[in-house]
Amino acid sequence: MEMLPLTVIEVVKMVMRRVDLRSDTVTKPTETMRAAMASAEVDDDVLGHDPTAARLEMEMARIMGKEAALFVPSGTMANLICVLTHCEIRGSEVILGDNSHIHIYENGGISTIGGVHPRTVKNNEDGTMDIDLIEAAIRDPAFEICYPTTRLICLENSHAHSGGRCLSVEYTDEVGELAKKHGVKLHIDGARIFNASIALGVPLHRLVQAADSVTACLSKGLGAPVGTIIAGSKSFIAKAKILRKTLGGGMRQVGVLCAAALVALEENVSKLEGDHQKAKILAEGLNKIKGLKVDMASVQTNIVYFDILKGSNITKTHLCKILEAHGVLTMPEGPFKLRLVVHHQISESDVQYTLSCIQKAVTGFIGENGGK
Amino acid sequence: MEMLPLTVIEVVKMVMRRVDLRSDTVTKPTETMRAAMASAEVDDDVLGHDPTAARLEMEMARIMGKEAALFVPSGTMANLICVLTHCEIRGSEVILGDNSHIHIYENGGISTIGGVHPRTVKNNEDGTMDIDLIEAAIRDPAFEICYPTTRLICLENSHAHSGGRCLSVEYTDEVGELAKKHGVKLHIDGARIFNASIALGVPLHRLVQAADSVTACLSKGLGAPVGTIIAGSKSFIAKAKILRKTLGGGMRQVGVLCAAALVALEENVSKLEGDHQKAKILAEGLNKIKGLKVDMASVQTNIVYFDILKGSNITKTHLCKILEAHGVLTMPEGPFKLRLVVHHQISESDVQYTLSCIQKAVTGFIGENGGK
Amino acid sequence: MEMLPLTVIEVVKMVMRRVDLRSDTVTKPTETMRAAMASAEVDDDVLGHDPTAARLEMEMARIMGKEAALFVPSGTMANLICVLTHCEIRGSEVILGDNSHIHIYENGGISTIGGVHPRTVKNNEDGTMDIDLIEAAIRDPAFEICYPTTRLICLENSHAHSGGRCLSVEYTDEVGELAKKHGVKLHIDGARIFNASIALGVPLHRLVQAADSVTACLSKGLGAPVGTIIAGSKSFIAKAKILRKTLGGGMRQVGVLCAAALVALEENVSKLEGDHQKAKILAEGLNKIKGLKVDMASVQTNIVYFDILKGSNITKTHLCKILEAHGVLTMPEGPFKLRLVVHHQISESDVQYTLSCIQKAVTGFIGENGGK
Amino acid sequence: MEMLPLTVIEVVKMVMRRVDLRSDTVTKPTETMRAAMASAEVDDDVLGHDPTAARLEMEMARIMGKEAALFVPSGTMANLICVLTHCEIRGSEVILGDNSHIHIYENGGISTIGGVHPRTVKNNEDGTMDIDLIEAAIRDPAFEICYPTTRLICLENSHAHSGGRCLSVEYTDEVGELAKKHGVKLHIDGARIFNASIALGVPLHRLVQAADSVTACLSKGLGAPVGTIIAGSKSFIAKAKILRKTLGGGMRQVGVLCAAALVALEENVSKLEGDHQKAKILAEGLNKIKGLKVDMASVQTNIVYFDILKGSNITKTHLCKILEAHGVLTMPEGPFKLRLVVHHQISESDVQYTLSCIQKAVTGFIGENGGK
Repeated sequence: MEMLPLTVIEVVKMVMRRVDLRSDTVTKPTETMRAAMASAEVDDDVLGHDPTAARLEMEMARIMGKEAALFVPSGTMANLICVLTHCEIRGSEVILGDNSHIHIYENGGISTIGGVHPRTVKNNEDGTMDIDLIEAAIRDPAFEICYPTTRLICLENSHAHSGGRCLSVEYTDEVGELAKKHGVKLHIDGARIFNASIALGVPLHRLVQAADSVTACLSKGLGAPVGTIIAGSKSFIAKAKILRKTLGGGMRQVGVLCAAALVALEENVSKLEGDHQKAKILAEGLNKIKGLKVDMASVQTNIVYFDILKGSNITKTHLCKILEAHGVLTMPEGPFKLRLVVHHQISESDVQYTLSCIQKAVTGFIGENGGK
Repeated sequence: MEMLPLTVIEVVKMVMRRVDLRSDTVTKPTETMRAAMASAEVDDDVLGHDPTAARLEMEMARIMGKEAALFVPSGTMANLICVLTHCEIRGSEVILGDNSHIHIYENGGISTIGGVHPRTVKNNEDGTMDIDLIEAAIRDPAFEICYPTTRLICLENSHAHSGGRCLSVEYTDEVGELAKKHGVKLHIDGARIFNASIALGVPLHRLVQAADSVTACLSKGLGAPVGTIIAGSKSFIAKAKILRKTLGGGMRQVGVLCAAALVALEENVSKLEGDHQKAKILAEGLNKIKGLKVDMASVQTNIVYFDILKGSNITKTHLCKILEAHGVLTMPEGPFKLRLVVHHQISESDVQYTLSCIQKAVTGFIGENGGK
Repeated sequence: MEMLPLTVIEVVKMVMRRVDLRSDTVTKPTETMRAAMASAEVDDDVLGHDPTAARLEMEMARIMGKEAALFVPSGTMANLICVLTHCEIRGSEVILGDNSHIHIYENGGISTIGGVHPRTVKNNEDGTMDIDLIEAAIRDPAFEICYPTTRLICLENSHAHSGGRCLSVEYTDEVGELAKKHGVKLHIDGARIFNASIALGVPLHRLVQAADSVTACLSKGLGAPVGTIIAGSKSFIAKAKILRKTLGGGMRQVGVLCAAALVALEENVSKLEGDHQKAKILAEGLNKIKGLKVDMASVQTNIVYFDILKGSNITKTHLCKILEAHGVLTMPEGPFKLRLVVHHQISESDVQYTLSCIQKAVTGFIGENGGK
Repeated sequence: MEMLPLTVIEVVKMVMRRVDLRSDTVTKPTETMRAAMASAEVDDDVLGHDPTAARLEMEMARIMGKEAALFVPSGTMANLICVLTHCEIRGSEVILGDNSHIHIYENGGISTIGGVHPRTVKNNEDGTMDIDLIEAAIRDPAFEICYPTTRLICLENSHAHSGGRCLSVEYTDEVGELAKKHGVKLHIDGARIFNASIALGVPLHRLVQAADSVTACLSKGLGAPVGTIIAGSKSFIAKAKILRKTLGGGMRQVGVLCAAALVALEENVSKLEGDHQKAKILAEGLNKIKGLKVDMASVQTNIVYFDILKGSNITKTHLCKILEAHGVLTMPEGPFKLRLVVHHQISESDVQYTLSCIQKAVTGFIGENGGK
């Protein structure tokens, strides 16, 4: 494949600073990860068990305090497998937050692929659902003639839609007890459970102790290129493994990905606290810009949502475009909000550059075509 | 099968007054209906088209102002067929009320059988959903990579869970316009759409004009023994007919049921207004009993919900049992509510008897074993 | 609805003899059935249990030698409910004949509605599947990582596609033992199981003894207007009842249909033997007509398939049309076959009339427009 | 993670020759692939498009002669996505071989996850299905009331279960024409389509020209660690991409895997012919061993099945164990067959070693514990 000559614009793009704050999924694998991939010991993980996958799964089971773990290609598959495994019997209902990632952002797969009926409960601002509302949503088996059977409650920690806020261990335990009382299982979507564990200062295994299954993303804050871990009991993981195969998530020499994930575990968990600090700096800086507003209570981990107040002299769409023109990528959310997510490849200097760009954009000093 | 001699209790039961207010589904076929069943012209409705079914379907299509109609064994099947027909493509989402019958009382069949993902919007006290909340729930096709596709909005008129309140033709039209604007279909669960039409004074065909599909129950207020009608365009009904067969709702000499339904149409539509008046009398009577409370605004058709106020000297369970002992059957709803549904086989005298029993029960004059 | 004046053609149609041999589903309810419907004791079978439905279900459970039974609107729903109830866990496979009614004529509902994976085994000419082929099709649980789980074997007795031939009690028992050995359930699609029982001279309960579930159609040979019975263990029927509601097969005052079915049981079981004799007479008569051929070994019950031999001076389509013009309705099957089904409303004289029409059509004495 | 001291057995295992012939999925990534992974240019392939994935997909679309292509984690997901995308409407049926990989080895996912009804046609010894049997299996839309709708025909080339035999371009074209005639789509499961293309001497794009969709595995003969490509029209791939996300096959910095796949394409396609030659040598050698039998007509690509004849003095299980003890891994198939699959990491010397081990095992010179 021969290389075409670069245009001027492309050269500019290459030298221009790029601060990608759309998500923590955009991290690039580090040199150590790349080296690990290049030297990973591998085997066919479908016919047998890839040794590096086995190591990662054992290590993650230990960290999460569960009997067993399973590597899958994405968080969406991880949640899908967990919900479908708990709800393996036709006629199951799952209780989950009305703003949960599973309900809003995963294509409705639990129904459209899995035939599971979702029953939503209002997510409070902090990502919790009221315990009594959860309990009221659990179906009374006495009316099984017209009710589906509640088989699962799902929590999400940290809770993306509420700005990455964390569910406390006490709250999680309480939902766990409720679930047990009603013979229902508890699943935790832990796409950013490492962030929650660090922010709360609670060991991960303790934080998810009440859960029958939990996922943890390795390619968000931890920076691995690909992959999410499911953890649970041995029998649960055995069923999950079959369903992973059915869905097409069984991969051959998957050790090349797991090797990078092992490096992510070793090197990047300790960086999450710094990410949270940078997010706070970013949030505080935004709050000082006239016309913008951040709810500081929501900035508990690495996600910052800010509102563009009415009367501000810039629209969300316009601001996005100006920032993009200056290399700062953001994620729009609804009509008046923008989301910024910090990760280990965002430096303090990137944060300052971002603040400066936003300040200038809001005050009209820079436009969509670069300088004003 | 020889007849066993009756016990004294059974004789008492037979002579005791029975006022079944649990639902309007409990009506017994009238003599005219029974005669119609006995003389119905029939044929195999699976191999061809039963002539009596054809007559009923044509008549109902006319009444509902749609091109075609289809007889199915139940309201649950009617809604299931309609939702699945509109959502025939994998990956569909339906917007419906969080207290709608489809979402709460139909076993979650649209997901567990049909793989359709439900997205609920809060039902207001009057059974409506806010138009802007519906619109916000319609998925943006720009994010189809992680969003299911909104294909249907469901309304319910009258709305059972809100006490049989009616959705106005203006509201229905407005939702219809919203649906059209977004290329989404509109379905109306019309289990009690005849009641709504009568109560609103709006012809049925006008009331459902905005709907792409609508159901109407023949075995509730209209008193037919079995059956619900689906109405819609010719192409919609053609698809619905195939799905009816798949689900097992295709019946052979179904004309025997349709004959009774034709009588129901002819004789009982005109009785609905009387049912509504009896419901109002019942509600007003209940409101006069100390410790009970009816929201009169909710009594628009044939359903009466009443609350047993805190501090009342009777519990819901106790009241139910006393009433049952005196032949009055009611439907409990949540911890403090009872539901009474009036129909053409409930006389004004039944209403007075019921009020008298409740009055006596609340004041302690009668107990669970008959007289005090 | 006013009556339109009849056209001459319609009058002719009314006086013309009509011999409907398309299926035994075309029977019309008898006067006794109509009277029973008109006087049936009924109640809401969804809120409680309709007394006539209860009587029918108890009686059918007794006849079929099972703990419990359930009335459903059609054979398609009966099979769908049985397969889905045995295969309630996601990932199930069912073994069934490649010419079975479930596989060919029920819209693929077990997959498209129920998500069950079918594994077909070749149906022999007599409707059986070789025992060793069935056993080979049962999945080895050791390969569960890529195999679905075999949970059910389905038989069909009598077997429609093979001309209504009967599976012996010995064969059925053998399949039952195989199923038990492998921890798999056995379902019998007994759309015409009464015919099989009569033809084999084996009591129905004995014939289906090995089955975990069995269906029996009441609207085929028995002549009831609507309905099929499912029989099985109490716990199986309890689950089946929930699924019947989910699919929309729960009907309110269903006793009107069950009353007719009870009459069918009482009056028409004894007529099946006569139907089989008439079928034999019909078959023998056809075999004597030049250019036609019946495999007499296949005529065991009430179904007659005949081939139009190559070299015959009439095509299948032409023959069908001529017969229809003379009031004899038949069912085409493949390019060279016609199916005739005898039932209690086909008299010996109808059989002779049919033979005479076919004889004349083949020899060119009558045509599509009546006489030659 | 500290290293435990090795046992003697483990040391022996490490130095012992290992010839893994179970499948061509067991290949290890080469040094060039590892280097490519380590230096791959990557980006978030869910939020946008990873540049290396984009390059691979464009290249594969070109090779396969289709408008677009998509990288997915496995062949199982690739087939699942293709079948479900063609059969996106509820009530679809797919025609496929009774020994096809999709039907036998993919957990029945097209039904259990996708609700698609499979209709099998007998696979001939050469992997084809008779054209007239396929045509007979296509459902007549005139009977849509009880028939599912045929929407897809699946072929498999090379056909694994028949020993890796190839479907000719003429046969494929003929099936394609049949499909077009009936408005049905054609999918080719091309897990080993590169092997077929090489063996037949037909360019890949020509071989799959008649197909509406085709898969090609990159982790079998081509030796990439992970991945399969789907190719088809732009609109098909757009739908497939959404379904990939729903199933959880969307991966973030997937370029690390695609980089290895690009190397596989560049370096290993040319090695397939050598694999086929080694397979022939292996097959001929086996045929010379008394008591073994290879159908040489079946050895067209890189798969060798051999039968252990009756009267041979060794059982399949025993032979397997002896070979395993000597480092030769094979795949049992049914009671009397073993499968050996050759790939680029099997040398001619490995082939000779394997033949020698088998010869010695059959003649009793070596046993399960090493030497006799």
